[in-house]
Amino acid sequence: MTDRSLPTDPKPYYEAHVFVCTNDRGEGAKRPSCARRGSEKLRDYMKAQARAAGLANVRINASGCLDRCELGCTIAIYPEGVWYHYDTRADLDEIIETHLKQGKRVERLMLTTEQEELRPEQLAEAAE
Amino acid sequence: MTDRSLPTDPKPYYEAHVFVCTNDRGEGAKRPSCARRGSEKLRDYMKAQARAAGLANVRINASGCLDRCELGCTIAIYPEGVWYHYDTRADLDEIIETHLKQGKRVERLMLTTEQEELRPEQLAEAAE
Repeated sequence: MTDRSLPTDPKPYYEAHVFVCTNDRGEGAKRPSCARRGSEKLRDYMKAQARAAGLANVRINASGCLDRCELGCTIAIYPEGVWYHYDTRADLDEIIETHLKQGKRVERLMLTTEQEELRPEQLAEAAE
Repeated sequence: MTDRSLPTDPKPYYEAHVFVCTNDRGEGAKRPSCARRGSEKLRDYMKAQARAAGLANVRINASGCLDRCELGCTIAIYPEGVWYHYDTRADLDEIIETHLKQGKRVERLMLTTEQEELRPEQLAEAAE
């Protein structure tokens, strides 16, 4: 149940539905885009890892532009509506283990509702 | 709030996040795909109509394969996790008006959790 649910709604089709932006604006675009940061391959990786982790009723979906391009690469996880920034396979491993398996949050990578730019700990260089 | 939410989660970024499958399996594929039924143009239509309806914090997103291909064209609306089949602009108009604006449901087009094929009233011919 969510605030927008009705009592007669069917039960969820996917336990968790993860949308990984794979939008590509092409070269020279004014805004960045997730595919230019490698999100297509990273989405394939996440999908394989989620399957390997036995998350049978979790869908790792490709999506078009989620429109938070300056915070990319981005992911939105529903029904909870939690958003993450990620850069690396290790980031995705952490989201799978902590969020999808344990039901907790990866605070370092989470996006807040009003956030317009990445926090220092979210920049790719911070992981190196 | 949803069953999967934590009290510390940020408030929703989008009031409603609509995912319209625009996957194209190409010619001769074993399973049908939404793009082959016109979903890309229909998604553009829905996006424009939602904007025209003044639904400012609703995102009409393209998505990859939602994996309910036999029920396509398909849409999933989060956080409530309600799924619809649609064929026409009129179907999308009804979803915008009844679901997104009024918070009700378009029963005729809704997909149930266990559904594996379209109901008679959901077939395109039923609308003609």
